[in-house]
Amino acid sequence: MSFAKLDQLGRKLEALEHALAILGADEATHMAIGGGEKRAQAVATLAGMHHRQATAPEIADWMGAAESEALDTDQQAALREFKRQYTNMTCLPAEFVERLTVARMRCEQLWRDLRAKNDWAGFLPALEGVIALVREEAAMRADALKLQPYDALMEQYDPGNRAADIAPVFDELKRFLKGFVPEALEVQAARLGKAPLKPLSGSYPVERQRELGLAMMAAVGFDLTHGSLSVSHHPFCGGVPTDVRITTRYKTTDFLSSLMGVLHETGHALYEQNLPQDWAHWPLGKARGMAVHESQSLFVEKQFGRNPAFWDWGLPLVEQHLGEHWSKADILPHVHMVEPGLIRVDADEVTYPLHVILRFELEQELVGGQLSPVDLPEAWDAKMRAYLGLSTIDNPADGPMQDVHWPGAAFGYFPSYTLGAMMAAQQWAALKQQHPAVDEQIARGDFETVNGWRRDNIWSQGSRYSTPELLERATGEKLNARYFIEHLKQRYGA
Amino acid sequence: MSFAKLDQLGRKLEALEHALAILGADEATHMAIGGGEKRAQAVATLAGMHHRQATAPEIADWMGAAESEALDTDQQAALREFKRQYTNMTCLPAEFVERLTVARMRCEQLWRDLRAKNDWAGFLPALEGVIALVREEAAMRADALKLQPYDALMEQYDPGNRAADIAPVFDELKRFLKGFVPEALEVQAARLGKAPLKPLSGSYPVERQRELGLAMMAAVGFDLTHGSLSVSHHPFCGGVPTDVRITTRYKTTDFLSSLMGVLHETGHALYEQNLPQDWAHWPLGKARGMAVHESQSLFVEKQFGRNPAFWDWGLPLVEQHLGEHWSKADILPHVHMVEPGLIRVDADEVTYPLHVILRFELEQELVGGQLSPVDLPEAWDAKMRAYLGLSTIDNPADGPMQDVHWPGAAFGYFPSYTLGAMMAAQQWAALKQQHPAVDEQIARGDFETVNGWRRDNIWSQGSRYSTPELLERATGEKLNARYFIEHLKQRYGA
Ligand SMILES: [Zn+2]
Ligand SMILES: [Zn+2]
Repeated sequence: MSFAKLDQLGRKLEALEHALAILGADEATHMAIGGGEKRAQAVATLAGMHHRQATAPEIADWMGAAESEALDTDQQAALREFKRQYTNMTCLPAEFVERLTVARMRCEQLWRDLRAKNDWAGFLPALEGVIALVREEAAMRADALKLQPYDALMEQYDPGNRAADIAPVFDELKRFLKGFVPEALEVQAARLGKAPLKPLSGSYPVERQRELGLAMMAAVGFDLTHGSLSVSHHPFCGGVPTDVRITTRYKTTDFLSSLMGVLHETGHALYEQNLPQDWAHWPLGKARGMAVHESQSLFVEKQFGRNPAFWDWGLPLVEQHLGEHWSKADILPHVHMVEPGLIRVDADEVTYPLHVILRFELEQELVGGQLSPVDLPEAWDAKMRAYLGLSTIDNPADGPMQDVHWPGAAFGYFPSYTLGAMMAAQQWAALKQQHPAVDEQIARGDFETVNGWRRDNIWSQGSRYSTPELLERATGEKLNARYFIEHLKQRYGA
Repeated sequence: MSFAKLDQLGRKLEALEHALAILGADEATHMAIGGGEKRAQAVATLAGMHHRQATAPEIADWMGAAESEALDTDQQAALREFKRQYTNMTCLPAEFVERLTVARMRCEQLWRDLRAKNDWAGFLPALEGVIALVREEAAMRADALKLQPYDALMEQYDPGNRAADIAPVFDELKRFLKGFVPEALEVQAARLGKAPLKPLSGSYPVERQRELGLAMMAAVGFDLTHGSLSVSHHPFCGGVPTDVRITTRYKTTDFLSSLMGVLHETGHALYEQNLPQDWAHWPLGKARGMAVHESQSLFVEKQFGRNPAFWDWGLPLVEQHLGEHWSKADILPHVHMVEPGLIRVDADEVTYPLHVILRFELEQELVGGQLSPVDLPEAWDAKMRAYLGLSTIDNPADGPMQDVHWPGAAFGYFPSYTLGAMMAAQQWAALKQQHPAVDEQIARGDFETVNGWRRDNIWSQGSRYSTPELLERATGEKLNARYFIEHLKQRYGA
């Protein structure tokens, strides 16, 4: 029984992944600072064991033999995902992976140091080294997967996503935003002219904010018997599906920054907590990919948390925990603030896609060789001026040096953020079609209809379908920009 | 280079041990309750990987070949401890270990359930099954190690400890305590007749107790950059030497229960934090054994924490953190309270050894076959009446059912507790001989001389010497009861 061998292998890999996930969450939340070096060694050794076990040559034989075994449909799907994982993990020679890892880690370290010094010239050689290796990587992945090089990189993060499908959708969105960003800013200016922003009172004890966050997490569906909320410097969602660790950080001057972050990570957590448990030790049982994951986090952050209906229910909770009264008219301008800026991670939902499209366009050229790293600051600045009217030419730290993705060799990842936002809007439109009263339910703090739809259509599917297939099955349509555009118009338009 | 292979193996095992240690601490402190089942599976799988890697047949060849390699003295010592670990891990057939594990886990579960119901008859068959297997285990270990059966069991916990050496020391202590327990109780009654016990005021906020605990931990030498203090139901010291996790639990009515527990676990932590780092991936770099470990925890709890000099320095700290003034005359009766009782873990330092000696005597007879499990309640009761004047005949829950050790098949472990207490007293006497002013130093909150002595003589030695050798080298004498008896006389006598 070769499938049985794969099944057994899955249980071993799951145990190592469990350890790595909990060690990762622990490192960011509870590890003593002096424990880092030994932790890094232990994690590297365990990751090496995982890689060796997941890429053993006999697995290819098991997969081949399992093809001709009598498998049920779940097992067939599981076999397909075992193959995908194996191909993605074995298509690069070990020697190359080592070189890439060394170059990547060195470039990330340099980046941390030189970004603070705004030193593009010092950083460029290391980035050039990484990009040269990424081009090699893309070629090897393309060869193994029979895909275009950039598609082969994206395939790691979102199986089935292809640049040829995404580019027209991003183009439509970009054309729309060209006119819409100024419109949204005008609308906002007019509104703030009439009623200035209510300031945050500025003294929100951490423990109260934590209780408010936990109350909202539980209400929107986070199972507190299978997960927890801690503090870390960079918020994340980690751990394992039966014990999801989300984190936030608190500013006592601003309860919204932590709260919106908690809602976002709760969205990631809901996906993990509701994955199919019977498949947990198979690649099939994992979340589909980064874009779908981001669609689930952004759904909770935006379709719930920035939805006016949400605050009908949410504001009494805020008052109960923080002792401060807010009206909807006062809170919405805070959660709907639009402000073009240089930094992607600080962007609002209107301008955020432009940051991503800029990177999507540039990184295809970088991987394809049409753009040289040395020309990146000019290319970045040109797009930044065209898309957002801002220049970064004298400020590479807030231009092409602002994100860790490229020094970290993660090309093909950026599209996931905006694909996630579009998918969330498309999912919301589809479920609202079936359940027109969801806003009223949310206004009562009843999230069950929405979560039921998401459980059936997304969470319970694990990795059964490719990213585009999953979306099309859930919403009845291929990915398109229309629903996200409608969403922005309705929330931010004239 | 066969030693190099052992060295490499050590690094792999260290990574798995690191994961298991952190997962273990995490489980008791931060894991979501619903995460337990998957955690148990992951831990079992990782422990299985560790066992398979640590017992691989080729290791025997490497150890054999390493014998004839040019090794320095550290490497020679490391090889000896590799061999000890390998022999202890391979001397039982895998099939037997599985049977023992099943029997042990079932008996532990039954114990949890039936102890609460005081149901000895229901529990007995499971315990009989475990003891039958322990007799087999002892025979197999004895054969592999060329030791007496009970000594072969003790060898797992304290290499070098032999019942023939320990029994006369325990006998001397038992004879002494027969007269001394009544004397200490009389002294105490007379004192309390003159000055009744100052009651605890009973409202000590957890956060204040935590700060007090952290302040004392740091002062007695706990390195807070390489460890932390959390809350768990059962206090423990876990984690890894570079990141030691100690825990406590708080009663808001009584600050001393948590504080004395924190001091005890800090003693364990100091040993771990100060083990030789260069040997961390070798068995040689580990703490010597349970008795030595307990000598280090009890040293901090008793030679520091129940030492009157300690409170000269400690009471202002209590007042600072808890806002409550205590005089030495008021606090000492609390930390020196003597009260014979049925339960070992609740016992004071005067009566505690009698609980251990009772178990040491009975478990030798159980392993040797002179005593049948069915006769245990009578045998226990007889000794309990003889040693402490208390009967458990109608109360097996607080008699032979009170500890998890026997259902858990951990025979040969109990002596470590009292050996630790005696070793701590013997170490204290030896260092005081060299440094007569240590009490004055402690009264000033200066623990450096004491810790320096312990670092040199105990902590930095790792597993270089057997348990009795380590003590003899540190104190110049074999284990004997004299120093512990002197310690009790001085602290509790007339
Ligand atoms: Zn996210
Ligand atoms: Zn202890």
